Amino acid sequence: MINPNTTGPMTDQMARAATAVAAADTHVIPFTADSGPTAIESYVDEAYATAKVLDLVKDNPDMDGYVIACASDPGLLAARELVTAPVIGIGEAAFLYATTLAPRFGVLTTLDRAIEQVWRQLGSYGLTSHCCSVRACDVGVLDTSHPGKEQLDSLVRTARAAVHDDGAEVIVLGCGGMTETAEALHAAVAVPVIDGVRAAVTMVEGLVRCGLQTSKLRTLAPPEPVRYISHGE
Amino acid sequence: MINPNTTGPMTDQMARAATAVAAADTHVIPFTADSGPTAIESYVDEAYATAKVLDLVKDNPDMDGYVIACASDPGLLAARELVTAPVIGIGEAAFLYATTLAPRFGVLTTLDRAIEQVWRQLGSYGLTSHCCSVRACDVGVLDTSHPGKEQLDSLVRTARAAVHDDGAEVIVLGCGGMTETAEALHAAVAVPVIDGVRAAVTMVEGLVRCGLQTSKLRTLAPPEPVRYISHGE
Amino acid sequence: MINPNTTGPMTDQMARAATAVAAADTHVIPFTADSGPTAIESYVDEAYATAKVLDLVKDNPDMDGYVIACASDPGLLAARELVTAPVIGIGEAAFLYATTLAPRFGVLTTLDRAIEQVWRQLGSYGLTSHCCSVRACDVGVLDTSHPGKEQLDSLVRTARAAVHDDGAEVIVLGCGGMTETAEALHAAVAVPVIDGVRAAVTMVEGLVRCGLQTSKLRTLAPPEPVRYISHGE
Amino acid sequence: MINPNTTGPMTDQMARAATAVAAADTHVIPFTADSGPTAIESYVDEAYATAKVLDLVKDNPDMDGYVIACASDPGLLAARELVTAPVIGIGEAAFLYATTLAPRFGVLTTLDRAIEQVWRQLGSYGLTSHCCSVRACDVGVLDTSHPGKEQLDSLVRTARAAVHDDGAEVIVLGCGGMTETAEALHAAVAVPVIDGVRAAVTMVEGLVRCGLQTSKLRTLAPPEPVRYISHGE
Amino acid sequence: MINPNTTGPMTDQMARAATAVAAADTHVIPFTADSGPTAIESYVDEAYATAKVLDLVKDNPDMDGYVIACASDPGLLAARELVTAPVIGIGEAAFLYATTLAPRFGVLTTLDRAIEQVWRQLGSYGLTSHCCSVRACDVGVLDTSHPGKEQLDSLVRTARAAVHDDGAEVIVLGCGGMTETAEALHAAVAVPVIDGVRAAVTMVEGLVRCGLQTSKLRTLAPPEPVRYISHGE
Amino acid sequence: MINPNTTGPMTDQMARAATAVAAADTHVIPFTADSGPTAIESYVDEAYATAKVLDLVKDNPDMDGYVIACASDPGLLAARELVTAPVIGIGEAAFLYATTLAPRFGVLTTLDRAIEQVWRQLGSYGLTSHCCSVRACDVGVLDTSHPGKEQLDSLVRTARAAVHDDGAEVIVLGCGGMTETAEALHAAVAVPVIDGVRAAVTMVEGLVRCGLQTSKLRTLAPPEPVRYISHGE
Repeated sequence: MINPNTTGPMTDQMARAATAVAAADTHVIPFTADSGPTAIESYVDEAYATAKVLDLVKDNPDMDGYVIACASDPGLLAARELVTAPVIGIGEAAFLYATTLAPRFGVLTTLDRAIEQVWRQLGSYGLTSHCCSVRACDVGVLDTSHPGKEQLDSLVRTARAAVHDDGAEVIVLGCGGMTETAEALHAAVAVPVIDGVRAAVTMVEGLVRCGLQTSKLRTLAPPEPVRYISHGE
Repeated sequence: MINPNTTGPMTDQMARAATAVAAADTHVIPFTADSGPTAIESYVDEAYATAKVLDLVKDNPDMDGYVIACASDPGLLAARELVTAPVIGIGEAAFLYATTLAPRFGVLTTLDRAIEQVWRQLGSYGLTSHCCSVRACDVGVLDTSHPGKEQLDSLVRTARAAVHDDGAEVIVLGCGGMTETAEALHAAVAVPVIDGVRAAVTMVEGLVRCGLQTSKLRTLAPPEPVRYISHGE
Repeated sequence: MINPNTTGPMTDQMARAATAVAAADTHVIPFTADSGPTAIESYVDEAYATAKVLDLVKDNPDMDGYVIACASDPGLLAARELVTAPVIGIGEAAFLYATTLAPRFGVLTTLDRAIEQVWRQLGSYGLTSHCCSVRACDVGVLDTSHPGKEQLDSLVRTARAAVHDDGAEVIVLGCGGMTETAEALHAAVAVPVIDGVRAAVTMVEGLVRCGLQTSKLRTLAPPEPVRYISHGE
Repeated sequence: MINPNTTGPMTDQMARAATAVAAADTHVIPFTADSGPTAIESYVDEAYATAKVLDLVKDNPDMDGYVIACASDPGLLAARELVTAPVIGIGEAAFLYATTLAPRFGVLTTLDRAIEQVWRQLGSYGLTSHCCSVRACDVGVLDTSHPGKEQLDSLVRTARAAVHDDGAEVIVLGCGGMTETAEALHAAVAVPVIDGVRAAVTMVEGLVRCGLQTSKLRTLAPPEPVRYISHGE
Repeated sequence: MINPNTTGPMTDQMARAATAVAAADTHVIPFTADSGPTAIESYVDEAYATAKVLDLVKDNPDMDGYVIACASDPGLLAARELVTAPVIGIGEAAFLYATTLAPRFGVLTTLDRAIEQVWRQLGSYGLTSHCCSVRACDVGVLDTSHPGKEQLDSLVRTARAAVHDDGAEVIVLGCGGMTETAEALHAAVAVPVIDGVRAAVTMVEGLVRCGLQTSKLRTLAPPEPVRYISHGE
Repeated sequence: MINPNTTGPMTDQMARAATAVAAADTHVIPFTADSGPTAIESYVDEAYATAKVLDLVKDNPDMDGYVIACASDPGLLAARELVTAPVIGIGEAAFLYATTLAPRFGVLTTLDRAIEQVWRQLGSYGLTSHCCSVRACDVGVLDTSHPGKEQLDSLVRTARAAVHDDGAEVIVLGCGGMTETAEALHAAVAVPVIDGVRAAVTMVEGLVRCGLQTSKLRTLAPPEPVRYISHGE
């Protein structure tokens, strides 16, 4: 499980959630990016974090499966080129699970600027028609993982608006930092609330148990043997 | 695990596949429709089988999760109304897993007439853009579960056409009866071959371990208390 | 004209509407399901009613054309397999007529839970882009056919919201029971109000006069000769 | 029934087809554009013909319904602004009928350059997903109405390719001039062949019998009172 | 630069805007329709104006590029048949530029009835997903070019609603008459405001400098040699 | 103009093409990534190159406009966050220009594995419906910029297939390295051939002359003030 940002406590929190749902014989190994943004809140942050995700995958090529633990799924397709074992993003897993629990889901994201990013992500997964609501709670990534009362109220208020005003029948948590708020939100809105960390870990387990791996035929074949230049070369 | 058709040996075959991938603490309980079509090869067959699926769900309301073991997923939404535990179709599960292994998948179905049915099913799941090929092998449902050499050749030939002519990078088996052909097909086409039975069982396990259930808020709430009339009433 | 539910008075009401618009040489023969739900208000009801629709079609194979008189069009594709004469659903007919009268229509349905069902139905007909509003009046199926003042007020209020808030320029009645409310609603909202019963009957007449029949080439060919098992067999 | 081109014999031919299917109490009144292109084979032809269609509608405002008898449906929305009675294009009617007879239809058009025009037309009606084939027979508009053996062979060959290579289960005739070839083509391809002239006439009859008219609320309200300048003014 | 309506002062205004942004070596030659509607406010107006646009293109075949200066882009495809030099509509250019400045734009149109027309135009360009708002300011075409305080207030109010209520991050002016309001609107809403006149002129310049011309292969080949009939012939 | 790969001669080649079409008062300043892949042929290469593109934008914040000179447009949205001046990708510009020259274009890409990447890129721009063909010529990025006879033959053969088999009426060059092949391909296929380098430079000029800049309201606002960790911190 790779945390693309550099905030170790957030990795720990997600690892706890992952371990709690994983099967007895699954060993969750958490990795944290060793440089780059402490939170991913813009396309710029995402771009720099993606390079770190790939470094971590290249350095740890022998896992049975990989979880990219940021809801925007940075580096998902590139990571799939690097290894044969399944690679699942926590955004992706949460969206896919959501499609099985209700006809339309809502996504609860952090900042207003991320709303459009989520719609693009859904579009790239071909899942736009399953989503009826993307709303921001105006709480930054790091605050979502230790929300005070005010932040939690904002999360609840936003989730309720998704359910009551937009018709969402499931809520997808749009940030890895929200992992520990799932229960409180579920209690407040009375619809399923999906945490991508737990979803992704169990989905990787499922793929592994079925013996399924990334297709290496064409699009996701190992990278071409392109030469890389280092600084000053 | 509910087999919507009335062919017991096909239920047994699918139950073996399911048990082989299920976790140690998962107990796969197979059910077979006690009346109706021995195979589902038309919209008419599907309609009659759907009523039987719902009878079985109503008679067995206490499972932790349900798998509808026919690739056209008969009765999926209706079954979700009847129970709170997750209900997954083997078509649905195979399609969702396929989206995580390659950008475009191909579906291998039985008869020519089912091609359009699969495209409609994909459309109803919002997954059309993930699929680049639906091809029929011209082998009936019951024959797919005990294919002779000729039938197996047809399956292989059709899968190869999906991969080489249509650009499929993963093959989804479009019939529960094809469960035991997965390995032979994978050997022949060198891309992942997804059996929905195995996919659905592990996906239900994943949902259950995450504590997720069908949303009961609106669309999939328990059926309204409508009065039913019996024959001769 | 087949009423998929078991409520005879509703059949009578729809038959009167059908007869009123049918050509002089058209004989409208109404059928009512002889068992099953008295109203179709869930996917479960729809599934059980579908089997009854197919029984009625099989028992009456010599009509010049068939109307399935429930707005969710249960069993439409399966019925087309069973006979060669045209089969039209009242939902389908109303939607198609609506596309010729204004750029966007609104659908007035019964219960909140049906909203998503209507969107899925539109999606399966490829007509999503023609619809800008699906709203529920919170009046059950049987009440729509004998609405009191309160129910009629709710129908009017909901139709007005579709027109004024959502931009609908035509209203489609989303339940066969609403047949006799068309005039009152039209008077209230000043846009065309389409009753699917009348639409379907005239559309079947049109197809018949053009000599057109269901294509039997592939998808809608007669069902395969699959063996059916009876209870206790 | 308005023929947008200036070829009277083609009007006569279409009027015969219309009269043959119309109800006993329907009076089909044919109109021919009195100036402009003798056939519509380009966007330029269509633009000039559209102005003539509108002139004819303005000069004949009291019909019970209007048919625009060119498969590209020139001036359809503008004509709907001018009158309240239903206006149906022969392309539109054929496409709508086709959706009720099979899951996917093919369109048989005249020249290669029209293929894209048909796809755009389908897109504007939101019907793209119902069409799996648009093929040109390389026979000009006027020749389609008096095809020699070579032209008829080309029509048959093209229709067969739509059915066998592209999966079409219904053929839509993509030119008003093809009216009299419907029977020969149906005999050759064994799927329904839809002539838009007959389809449009019966669809207008159906709308009129249901008492339905164009919505005048907003988009298709009568034109604004804009001042027009004449040449030399 | 062709103004499809017959209002000369509006042509002058648009020509000034065009000249102000054109390169030093670009000569903007304005043309005004010599007969037809003084403003284009309905499909009927558009149809008659289209014929005049084509007359002007045929009479002036030797330009290096053409701008159709009405936001509904009347006659765009037909004009491309007539000449090889690039032809750009001001609606089209504004929409394309808008896609490069923000993920979603809003269109500010004139009358309520035009809202649906804009959505259809966007659909025909395949740009629906880029647009999140089409709103009418209820100011007629001619008034938009000389707005009083009340009209300007309405434009500002409508643009603000697009930005704040609908999520637009760029505003596209939906009428050539709005050219001179761009600065005032930009000052009011603090997002880019795109005037199609300026956009189209610079886009034509860009295409010309790249040596690019309309494809003459198939769809936009010169019109077929169809015979035209004059009145009384 | 930023070349995301580290191959200086390719930068020079693209700079020559850009300068040849730029206006007299435009100064094209080429930049080359100083580390990273010498060619971008996988998602992994693209991810690492994106970080370099952003470094170059941050180091050169005062340009009037930016061109990202790789057809997959790496870092496009992130670069738009960093600066206010317009940022255009050469893929994007070529696609947008193509939509104005013919109804459907074809994209000529390098390797088979890139075909799906192009379709995804088109999907993210909402331009899928404009493209009817993506074909690979099986020539690597660096070879496309110095093609031998065999490589050029492959480019021509692939372009011809797009035009004749897939219906493309314009060809878009799917790699910056193909810049100098545009003339030869145009001579061979007789439809417009669009080089994104030239398209992007003139499109940026157009935006700048119109005074248009990236919207800073929400999605593309400057990045949040997230703290970045360096290695070993």
